[in-house]
Amino acid sequence: MTIKIGIMGYGNLGRGIECAIKHCDDMELTAVFTRRDPASLSILTPGVPVLAAEKAADMAGQIDVLMLCGGSATDLPVMTPKYVSMFNVVDSFDTHAKIPEHFAAVDEAAKAAGKVALISGGWDPGMFSLNRLYANCILPQGKDYTFWGRGVSQGHSDAIRRIPGVLDARQYTVPVDDALASARNGEGKEFTARQMHTRECYVVVEEGADKASIEQQIVTMPNYFADYNTTVNFISMDELKANHSGIPHGGFVIRSGKTGWNDEHSHTIEYSLNLDSNPEFTSSVLVAAARAVARFAGEGKTGCLTMFDVPPAYLSPLSGEYLRAHML
Amino acid sequence: MTIKIGIMGYGNLGRGIECAIKHCDDMELTAVFTRRDPASLSILTPGVPVLAAEKAADMAGQIDVLMLCGGSATDLPVMTPKYVSMFNVVDSFDTHAKIPEHFAAVDEAAKAAGKVALISGGWDPGMFSLNRLYANCILPQGKDYTFWGRGVSQGHSDAIRRIPGVLDARQYTVPVDDALASARNGEGKEFTARQMHTRECYVVVEEGADKASIEQQIVTMPNYFADYNTTVNFISMDELKANHSGIPHGGFVIRSGKTGWNDEHSHTIEYSLNLDSNPEFTSSVLVAAARAVARFAGEGKTGCLTMFDVPPAYLSPLSGEYLRAHML
Repeated sequence: MTIKIGIMGYGNLGRGIECAIKHCDDMELTAVFTRRDPASLSILTPGVPVLAAEKAADMAGQIDVLMLCGGSATDLPVMTPKYVSMFNVVDSFDTHAKIPEHFAAVDEAAKAAGKVALISGGWDPGMFSLNRLYANCILPQGKDYTFWGRGVSQGHSDAIRRIPGVLDARQYTVPVDDALASARNGEGKEFTARQMHTRECYVVVEEGADKASIEQQIVTMPNYFADYNTTVNFISMDELKANHSGIPHGGFVIRSGKTGWNDEHSHTIEYSLNLDSNPEFTSSVLVAAARAVARFAGEGKTGCLTMFDVPPAYLSPLSGEYLRAHML
Repeated sequence: MTIKIGIMGYGNLGRGIECAIKHCDDMELTAVFTRRDPASLSILTPGVPVLAAEKAADMAGQIDVLMLCGGSATDLPVMTPKYVSMFNVVDSFDTHAKIPEHFAAVDEAAKAAGKVALISGGWDPGMFSLNRLYANCILPQGKDYTFWGRGVSQGHSDAIRRIPGVLDARQYTVPVDDALASARNGEGKEFTARQMHTRECYVVVEEGADKASIEQQIVTMPNYFADYNTTVNFISMDELKANHSGIPHGGFVIRSGKTGWNDEHSHTIEYSLNLDSNPEFTSSVLVAAARAVARFAGEGKTGCLTMFDVPPAYLSPLSGEYLRAHML
């Protein structure tokens, strides 16, 4: 049976979901919803309607899982509880500190409506979280490290763009090789933010802008840059478009730990991602999660879930028999 | 509530499980069962009884999960269906080709007895399988690679030991760097066995043995060595004991795949293990699996499971609230 998917919000993530569905024989895209004028939107899949967000309720019976492609700061805290009253939903809520609060709100709304929600899908939170969890269960005595990059941080790029005189910017988060090597070697060291990551900025400024002042404003910016070794490169708009238009990302989750009666043996577990397109990979995880949501809904389960609650086989279109014979 | 664990078989794996339980506050070792004379066995945990294997049935009410530490060739196909008639059980059955058959036999016995079994726990099958599955669900269009090592292969070491004139031997399986680099780069190449792994042998022979003949017998041995580039090093028994007494292992599971409307973006997912002690790491996975088995049993579930069926949170002693707040 085909799983019917709706997409709420058609930015990078929504488009990534549309592309991911194309790769899944067991899914079809039923509708795209937008807060913009639907007539202004041109999507990739032929024959699929683009509808105003407020029309979503009319489609409640025709969509198995609605993918909520909003931002975590202001969109999802409202959207996810709202839409789970009508649909089974998946979101990628990624404000780590506010996950418990978001979970509670979504769980209550989902249970009241008899629907299933999966929140905080993607790769961090998501696949990185799963790998932290598995590694902690296997090696209860040990130390965790998460390194991000090399990749574009949207938040840091936006922070640079808000400086007067800046026309555009791209910020790459880069793991520090020495810290990565130490984590892999199981040395168990503690690192400061500065010791784990550097920040590389590519900045396009207005004609005649004071570059020295802009550079100073970037490297001293609290929260974003002050705690890191930051390099600022001023480049032309053409160079930015030619060399920095992608949205690559990735990173490393490492846990080293001890086993043995006297902790005499060391082990390192490492999970890493090297991604050409952050939103398309995130979307691919969300679409696999939608499969699990549809299956849970079919079993009559209700409430809020995360990837921690999903049996891995539920993410697959293949049968248990096939998976045991070919992947175990 | 403490989970009461029994260990059936006290070799490297049984001892590894005993050590892993020491690191888990929510578990305790209730008894060790052996087919040897119990009086001949000295275990590490003070105050825990060592009993003859045939006494296990008497302890059925006192053990939550029995860990079956037998070999996959002849022990587990008999042991797992037998003991699941009395206990919830975990095994590390690792003959990949026979997993469907083993699963069916254990599932039938477990359901008849109203017990839960988890088979094929460990790292391959086990954590490597999970990572193959997750990566396939996320990137349905892509290519899988599994590299093993650098680590000791018990089967290959045994094969060398069976050659007349050989006193002892250790065989290391080693991934080929070029193939590993190609897999990581997402080149999508097909490799032969020879292109992916080399085999390094350290061999102790009898005084006056024909080394040239022994080397020839090793490198041409079908199934084990003929399809690989194999190097043979003759060393003294002292050297073997000093430098090759550990049982390290590990490896890499890599999937590269494409996303985007026209497959324009590449991604690589990599999971790797670097293990000082293969049996202790395997045991640590099995003990986490026992936690899930105890939880499923408490919910009234019966039948056979694999790691594919276990919500990751079930492997943890921590609450869902804690995991969402700290690991997601």
